[in-house]
Amino acid sequence: MTVSIIGSGNVATHLAKALKTANVKVLSIWSNRFENAEELAQLVNAKAVKELTEIAADESDILLISVKDDAIGSVVQKLNGYSGVVAHTSGSVSLTALNGIESHGVFYPLQTFSKQKEIDFSLVPLCLEASTPSALAKLKKLAALLSRHCYDVDSEQRKILHLAAVFACNFPNYLYGIAQQLLAQNQLDFNIIKPLIIETANKIQTALPVNVQTGPAIRNDVQTLNKHEEMLQKHPEWLTIYKLLSEQIKKG
Amino acid sequence: MTVSIIGSGNVATHLAKALKTANVKVLSIWSNRFENAEELAQLVNAKAVKELTEIAADESDILLISVKDDAIGSVVQKLNGYSGVVAHTSGSVSLTALNGIESHGVFYPLQTFSKQKEIDFSLVPLCLEASTPSALAKLKKLAALLSRHCYDVDSEQRKILHLAAVFACNFPNYLYGIAQQLLAQNQLDFNIIKPLIIETANKIQTALPVNVQTGPAIRNDVQTLNKHEEMLQKHPEWLTIYKLLSEQIKKG
Repeated sequence: MTVSIIGSGNVATHLAKALKTANVKVLSIWSNRFENAEELAQLVNAKAVKELTEIAADESDILLISVKDDAIGSVVQKLNGYSGVVAHTSGSVSLTALNGIESHGVFYPLQTFSKQKEIDFSLVPLCLEASTPSALAKLKKLAALLSRHCYDVDSEQRKILHLAAVFACNFPNYLYGIAQQLLAQNQLDFNIIKPLIIETANKIQTALPVNVQTGPAIRNDVQTLNKHEEMLQKHPEWLTIYKLLSEQIKKG
Repeated sequence: MTVSIIGSGNVATHLAKALKTANVKVLSIWSNRFENAEELAQLVNAKAVKELTEIAADESDILLISVKDDAIGSVVQKLNGYSGVVAHTSGSVSLTALNGIESHGVFYPLQTFSKQKEIDFSLVPLCLEASTPSALAKLKKLAALLSRHCYDVDSEQRKILHLAAVFACNFPNYLYGIAQQLLAQNQLDFNIIKPLIIETANKIQTALPVNVQTGPAIRNDVQTLNKHEEMLQKHPEWLTIYKLLSEQIKKG
């Protein structure tokens, strides 16, 4: 099985590395900026190409499109003649965005990727969808080589997943940032609170979040809630967040 | 070194177990409900006592008070004659709450404990404070036997830590709960999103949260933000949270 990649961002980079690790040959890589394609191609022994038409003609089995959501449409228009399965890797773009291509699908890794940080791709959930059973079978075959966690997820469900990921990842990270700033402003080491952050994420691996909710709001510990609100007077925006989330938690 | 414990809740239980693991003798355990004291005492080969006066007379080096914040005062009144160091384990109660006792301190484990879930206590940060250098030295000696992460934290700083923990633990857990419910309502397995939750917590072990913020708000991806808000119309309370946190993230 061979794969080509359009894109060179975080997702494209981690996918390319995972493919190499799984001994799946990456044929061509195209990026909006050729230098980026070259850099990634070198990393995984692939060929950096300057024109999308070159990728369309390279006879890879699967072509993964891993570019910004709003660039997918213009990329697709240039893939005339490609004979393999084309799949995008976006959480929020519908399968139908690839309707112009005969055999198409979605290959969505539900994870937060940073360029600097290595990741064990075998633990990354892959959400798959395709236009035909045979295209789906090919994507599943590829997915199984990369990850132990492959899921059939249709476009509507994928949108829900993407929204849920905002609550499960983007918002918690923002709140970690508030905690870090509170500590820094009081000469406290952010390291003190890191084990707590890890354990909070670990807990819900085996329990429903609602069953392991802790803190002053769930105990309706009014005295502590009032103290905390007083301490946040200098940070009206954090105070608003504190009040809103505590109110919601109190309602249970 | 010997320790006695007042309380039998989550913190008291994990402390007692960690003491046993570290080969620190637990002499006596008292609890509001004697059965609970008995149960915990059996677990760590200690003696369950019915009266606080028995603990006060048992000549342990350190007495840890691990009861609800508002019960600390009444416990302290009954410890006349105790000759060791008395320390409470609360994040939000001042050192001065123990002023009635000659040698006193705070022994605050900054972690979220559940009775069902084992924890590696050597990774739990212990925040220490004491009324005298000699009391502090004793608490530090004990702390070093239990954990690799001991910090000097005064009462004002401890209050900040406790507030930061709400943002770093209690609020993220509540948001995990929203994600879980969104998935369940759409026949999606909560497991799909668990690796994302772990990786989000892992990321900030080596990076500042503000430097690894991802998601539609930080990209100012208005199209996705609008789509998500539409999807949340049926959940006005989650919509309010979505809008508020997205607004804050956009401000950077």
